[in-house]
Amino acid sequence: MTPQFAPVELEKAYRLINHGATALVSAHHAGVDNVMSASWVCGLDFKPAKLTVVIDKIARTRELIEQSGYFVIQVPTVAQLQMTYDLGTRTLRNDPDKLQHCGAELFRMEGHGDLPFVAGCSAWLACKLIPEPHNQQAHDLFIGEIVGAWADTRVFSNGHWHFEDADPSLRSLHYIAGGQFYATGEALNANTDLG
Amino acid sequence: MTPQFAPVELEKAYRLINHGATALVSAHHAGVDNVMSASWVCGLDFKPAKLTVVIDKIARTRELIEQSGYFVIQVPTVAQLQMTYDLGTRTLRNDPDKLQHCGAELFRMEGHGDLPFVAGCSAWLACKLIPEPHNQQAHDLFIGEIVGAWADTRVFSNGHWHFEDADPSLRSLHYIAGGQFYATGEALNANTDLG
Repeated sequence: MTPQFAPVELEKAYRLINHGATALVSAHHAGVDNVMSASWVCGLDFKPAKLTVVIDKIARTRELIEQSGYFVIQVPTVAQLQMTYDLGTRTLRNDPDKLQHCGAELFRMEGHGDLPFVAGCSAWLACKLIPEPHNQQAHDLFIGEIVGAWADTRVFSNGHWHFEDADPSLRSLHYIAGGQFYATGEALNANTDLG
Repeated sequence: MTPQFAPVELEKAYRLINHGATALVSAHHAGVDNVMSASWVCGLDFKPAKLTVVIDKIARTRELIEQSGYFVIQVPTVAQLQMTYDLGTRTLRNDPDKLQHCGAELFRMEGHGDLPFVAGCSAWLACKLIPEPHNQQAHDLFIGEIVGAWADTRVFSNGHWHFEDADPSLRSLHYIAGGQFYATGEALNANTDLG
């Protein structure tokens, strides 16, 4: 499902989420894998590379992150629209076969233990939780240090996305509410010469 | 420049930034206005509505926020591509006419004092700083409670964006790095019937 991907330098990993794409959050603990979708994922720092993700107390994935100290943020594609929506509405708490029902297929990455990665995404960021009890309790806000990053080379290489050269089904998703998404659109370039 | 805009319910204000658009952050204190662009703006809560924004210690706008306790997050359009880039690279510290040089025109909103709003954007979120000294110092992370929200009715109404019905120049921007942006693209809808 993910035929070609390559590592991304950690200092450039923020670029994988900088366009504000809807993300999938996955984690594993004690034999349990789970994946949920999350709109509120955001860059936090370049070096060391960090990001934030907001995860409600109701989420089973949150427990797996708190227990294991690790999670993966991944960028799903237009081809994964329905899966992304379903992963955000179904819960492992009352649907033990949630991943199968949503069509999410997992794989492991060498050197990252049992951390579950979702196949078919365009980018993956393996994160180590930086525990911040106040933020987690008061704001449902989790901070992760990015310890590994990879991208599908058909849409991201040399530190930049190049959706415009690839199949539109590989573009990212941007969620609004109620099942409404937008795909990443037209490439635009600002004049970088301050003159 | 902004002929038609209407208030947005605070509980739905997160939808104005949920698609991960690049934002402009503005603030005012003691006669000084400033505006900067920021990619790292993210929803945090629905009710009361809150958001996060990452602002480097070097930014003059950060001082204005810390001094006044208020700021505005706004969503610039494709028509404002160059202005958005320039507002992120020029600084008021060595360019006192930064706003004029970038082509940013400000207006005030009734009931919101001297808070500066950037004309021509598609959405505006007036925010009250929730002071969190640890997050601000350690992570450059600021939390705001959204106390007012408005959107251009040509692209947002009834709680949803409808870029597909409007001029493409009103779409949002999604920044990557080095002057590279993407516009918001195709509208997509997931099947919301869990079946």
